[in-house]
Amino acid sequence: MKNLIIASTSTLHGGSYLDYLLPTLKKHFENCSTLLFVPYARPGGITHEAYTAKAAEVFAKLNITVKGIHEYENPIEAVQQAEGIFTGGGNTFLLVTQLYKTGTMDAIEKAVKQGTPYLGTSAGSNICGLTMNTTNDMPIIYPPSFQTLGLVPFNINPHYLDPLPDSTHMGETRETRIKEFHQFNTQPVLGLREGSWLDVKGSTITLKGELQARLFKQGQEPEEIETDTDLSWLK
Amino acid sequence: MKNLIIASTSTLHGGSYLDYLLPTLKKHFENCSTLLFVPYARPGGITHEAYTAKAAEVFAKLNITVKGIHEYENPIEAVQQAEGIFTGGGNTFLLVTQLYKTGTMDAIEKAVKQGTPYLGTSAGSNICGLTMNTTNDMPIIYPPSFQTLGLVPFNINPHYLDPLPDSTHMGETRETRIKEFHQFNTQPVLGLREGSWLDVKGSTITLKGELQARLFKQGQEPEEIETDTDLSWLK
Repeated sequence: MKNLIIASTSTLHGGSYLDYLLPTLKKHFENCSTLLFVPYARPGGITHEAYTAKAAEVFAKLNITVKGIHEYENPIEAVQQAEGIFTGGGNTFLLVTQLYKTGTMDAIEKAVKQGTPYLGTSAGSNICGLTMNTTNDMPIIYPPSFQTLGLVPFNINPHYLDPLPDSTHMGETRETRIKEFHQFNTQPVLGLREGSWLDVKGSTITLKGELQARLFKQGQEPEEIETDTDLSWLK
Repeated sequence: MKNLIIASTSTLHGGSYLDYLLPTLKKHFENCSTLLFVPYARPGGITHEAYTAKAAEVFAKLNITVKGIHEYENPIEAVQQAEGIFTGGGNTFLLVTQLYKTGTMDAIEKAVKQGTPYLGTSAGSNICGLTMNTTNDMPIIYPPSFQTLGLVPFNINPHYLDPLPDSTHMGETRETRIKEFHQFNTQPVLGLREGSWLDVKGSTITLKGELQARLFKQGQEPEEIETDTDLSWLK
């Protein structure tokens, strides 16, 4: 049975890494004494080692030992044997490129569909959708494909940002960008604000956290989704 | 001799389409009675026809007739025969996909290198750099390549945005994104603020407009470039 936490962000403003999610993660990974960390998204260009150390520090509080996927000679086997998987945020283009290069895109999809508990934050959440076409990241590297894990039957927009009322900047708002996406793509897009996450248990998908999420469907006005809503119907 | 205007934005806050550039464009296109418009970037998903009409309305003030590239049976010939070319802003992924699909990426590069005057705004400026890896746009479609026209020997970041001092949003700042780009790419990136443009005459590249631009080089601290600076040395 699928068992995922798909979080908009790892860190809330003024908070520390993953702290707002810790009670949730304690339950989510209660049967894990080890966790496989996927540091491929490298936020700010941080090394795999430094990024893994950052994740390990947090999970030590839950008595879970973290090992980075880059430490394994065979990353596919590492995924297959993982008790739990955590893919951290950073740059989605870089993450997806590395997942394809190492053959772990397929391996993670299979493992999670078979029940390995998964946590994604930001870029690690983006890849849970059908494609990475609704990432906010800069395309710093050219991935072999924009197809992603498809662990939920729609696209994710993490760090969803409402238009700034006083902005004089002429770049597109997030909503405008997602509307452009829907000129060429049919799948719904769920805008997850920072502090929201999806809890996926089998075929049940529930919005969690204190905030609403913003749902975009092709050819329709966006709508606000209340927290604790069951989104299993969404595709 | 190359002859380009590479503008950060088409429109300033509170202004109308291209108005701040009109005196510059009058001179830039003084030998043109017609202009080929490339509407492929389709901002907000606008049609090619509607977008071309918007450009035509402005250039009518300069007694220049605008025709959209989509109106031609052979877009490559349209580029070869154009008196001047204007590529409008919108989504860079869409623009680059269409330029490759129609074979006009090469055709525009050749025409502009042979002296056809060119205007780019936003996405139309992004493609003047070596690659589109430093676009701000959402990857709504998968282009066959991120390589672009290479009409200047560096990358462009249009709509360059300084960090917002009061922001509580945890998404990456523009500067962080460009630093991530430099973890994997060597070419300099010029952040053009809205209201700035590059004037390219042969091998001379001059920063224009009232603002400074922000220059990012791999492994170095970013620096501010004053307007009217000759950037011909930059590569």
